[in-house]
Amino acid sequence: MRMVDIIERKRDGVTLSDAEIRFFVEGYTKGEIPDYQASSFAMATLFRGMNKEEIATLTDAMMHSGDVIDLSSIKGVKVDKHSTGGVGDKTSLALGPLVAACGAKVAKMSGRGLGHTGGTLDKMESIPGMKIEVNEEDFIKQVNEIGIAIIGQTKKLVPADKKLYALRDVTGTVESIPLIASSIMSKKLASGSDAILLDVKFGRGAFMKTLDSAKELAETMVEIGDSLKRDTRAIITDMNQPLGLAVGNALEVKEAIDTLNGHGPKDFVELVRNAGSIMLQQAGIAKDMEDGYRLIDNAIADRSGLEKLKALVKAQGGDESYITNPEQFPVAKNIVEIKSDVAGYVERIDSLEIGLSAMRLGAGRETMADKIDMSAGILLKKKVGDKVEVGEVLALAHTNHESFAKELEDIRHAFNISPAEIKVDPIVHAYIKK
Amino acid sequence: MRMVDIIERKRDGVTLSDAEIRFFVEGYTKGEIPDYQASSFAMATLFRGMNKEEIATLTDAMMHSGDVIDLSSIKGVKVDKHSTGGVGDKTSLALGPLVAACGAKVAKMSGRGLGHTGGTLDKMESIPGMKIEVNEEDFIKQVNEIGIAIIGQTKKLVPADKKLYALRDVTGTVESIPLIASSIMSKKLASGSDAILLDVKFGRGAFMKTLDSAKELAETMVEIGDSLKRDTRAIITDMNQPLGLAVGNALEVKEAIDTLNGHGPKDFVELVRNAGSIMLQQAGIAKDMEDGYRLIDNAIADRSGLEKLKALVKAQGGDESYITNPEQFPVAKNIVEIKSDVAGYVERIDSLEIGLSAMRLGAGRETMADKIDMSAGILLKKKVGDKVEVGEVLALAHTNHESFAKELEDIRHAFNISPAEIKVDPIVHAYIKK
Repeated sequence: MRMVDIIERKRDGVTLSDAEIRFFVEGYTKGEIPDYQASSFAMATLFRGMNKEEIATLTDAMMHSGDVIDLSSIKGVKVDKHSTGGVGDKTSLALGPLVAACGAKVAKMSGRGLGHTGGTLDKMESIPGMKIEVNEEDFIKQVNEIGIAIIGQTKKLVPADKKLYALRDVTGTVESIPLIASSIMSKKLASGSDAILLDVKFGRGAFMKTLDSAKELAETMVEIGDSLKRDTRAIITDMNQPLGLAVGNALEVKEAIDTLNGHGPKDFVELVRNAGSIMLQQAGIAKDMEDGYRLIDNAIADRSGLEKLKALVKAQGGDESYITNPEQFPVAKNIVEIKSDVAGYVERIDSLEIGLSAMRLGAGRETMADKIDMSAGILLKKKVGDKVEVGEVLALAHTNHESFAKELEDIRHAFNISPAEIKVDPIVHAYIKK
Repeated sequence: MRMVDIIERKRDGVTLSDAEIRFFVEGYTKGEIPDYQASSFAMATLFRGMNKEEIATLTDAMMHSGDVIDLSSIKGVKVDKHSTGGVGDKTSLALGPLVAACGAKVAKMSGRGLGHTGGTLDKMESIPGMKIEVNEEDFIKQVNEIGIAIIGQTKKLVPADKKLYALRDVTGTVESIPLIASSIMSKKLASGSDAILLDVKFGRGAFMKTLDSAKELAETMVEIGDSLKRDTRAIITDMNQPLGLAVGNALEVKEAIDTLNGHGPKDFVELVRNAGSIMLQQAGIAKDMEDGYRLIDNAIADRSGLEKLKALVKAQGGDESYITNPEQFPVAKNIVEIKSDVAGYVERIDSLEIGLSAMRLGAGRETMADKIDMSAGILLKKKVGDKVEVGEVLALAHTNHESFAKELEDIRHAFNISPAEIKVDPIVHAYIKK
């Protein structure tokens, strides 16, 4: 078998065999197939697509390119959630503890942030002492003891994806549904949970720009999960404004704590209730959506979700007093108001612009070498649908930088104010399952 | 400017700017743009194509990536011919001397063969002493003195193409008209002739498989030549059987000599007369096709073409007595008849199969490291349209190998014999000029 023939077959629209796809993934992982063949193959795949069987094989081959975590020694249904990445997305920090408090097992491997979207691991590290590198044995032990662990991916998880993703990023081959879907699903499947809920976001600031492309990606991933015998479901959620009010690491952790205390922002609570209800159904704990909502609402009201977050922090070496007293989190030196110069209703808040501005204020990385300022970020004071008067505060910029005029300007421009009242859509646009 | 953005723009069907195309060619030639970006760019180009302006810019940028030969010190019109490569294609060895004998200036840089098609340089080297590495100064001097030189390309000619072609070969990106056209034309333009005749072959054994794709390539190249102010024309010729009767280095040189002696095979003479007439019109020597035919016919009849070949061989250090007495060429130890087991008419002779068989008998290289046996090859005894009886000889295999049963079988299978009479098409299917 020669890689050049496989490239030519994909280029010519021929369906690839199981053996051909595995030859590529194994050869590329071992370094026997060079980058220049992988990149032309990725481009041919971008143009020609892949059918369901090809995508399932690709995912399975990538999943088995490295370690596959065996969670069978954890009793109960292990549920995992994956978001395609958004601005202000602190969902795992509230949702994980809530579903664990309701009895589901959450054994989660998470990622770091890059560019305009933050990563759960970075947010967790704003809590002093918090360890995110945990070995597999301790990971399983922790989930068995307290029902939840959120740690970093081991280096040996899906090496094929690490290599291929880095290559796609510089060769114009990121935007291919089969490649995106297999990249995400291979990691989720390798990390061993029984059930997976995918939160596929769309809009500016999200990976998928349109509702249709988000649906296509979600359906493809649900299909992969189904082929590989995992209960996989997806929700399509709106990223045409940041999620919740807080963008930036410590700010988002505080918002997650607020939410577990019953004071979460409306759209964020709505997302957590929906995702939580579905995960509890996947775990066999809730019998339908309504039942799931009720269980999640209870876990907020009785603070059992908050207690679970404390247990998680404590188990991973973090200072749990930060959860009880969040005012201990560092606060940025400069907190600057951004005011509206027009009156009207907020029609849209450009998430990409808000994400990039937060990053530039110190909250994120442009490259993996950059260091994050945990206190930096943006707090929104207005969301889509809100009425705004001239001179009213739209948002607060939190930063330790001394010069930030450009960022303030960009944040102001991220708000689109309409003279007419705005109808607010629900955050969850669709729910996809087999 | 970033290469990844240029790749994405081509992928998305955006027309690239002059600056973007030159950024790619210059960066790739210098090694600043890695192979993995060049290959995904090539694949995107294969799918999206390029418009006339993009192709002209790409060709111009490649042409200027290295040395550009200045032939202005040669008096008269310099004409060049390029074939896209075929089986039994010894055209340059007969055509070059004939048009030079008629007064055109032939300053030709040629290539080596690989795979199933032979190269003019390899054929020339079957004449003892023949030098093909000649410096630019001596090259120009020779053309001024005797009107013709056929030498190897200098290493510094179009380095961008050398690199890109090697990459395309292993990344499934050969079959792109803009990339093929710019590759051929950049080399022809850099080697400095005023007028170019392209012989674009189609059929099995040719680079372009269909008449339509050959026409598209020819039209694209004529367009490039026109944009860059060179008189460029093309003929589309049939490669659904080998050209002439001889396939293999010394065998082909002998056939070229036979042709210059007035004893050439019908199809080969037809090609030489057509190509020759057009080149003499490009050189301003013939006024129309008929006039060109007459001049070529005269140069065969009065042996001035043969004398010109002798002068060419002598000027490049070769033993010209081989031209006068071609029986001096080495003859293979084994000359084996391949007989027909059916009666009928030859409908088709699979050029690819004949080319590959000749290569395996010793006449060609599979890799650039292989050594060529100058005496090896195949002599056809029947051509398309010929009547064949059972037991009649179809071809002779010439080889120094001891085991060749497989090759004989393949050669027999290359002949397609029909019970019905076959109409023979003219070898030149179209003539394309602006």
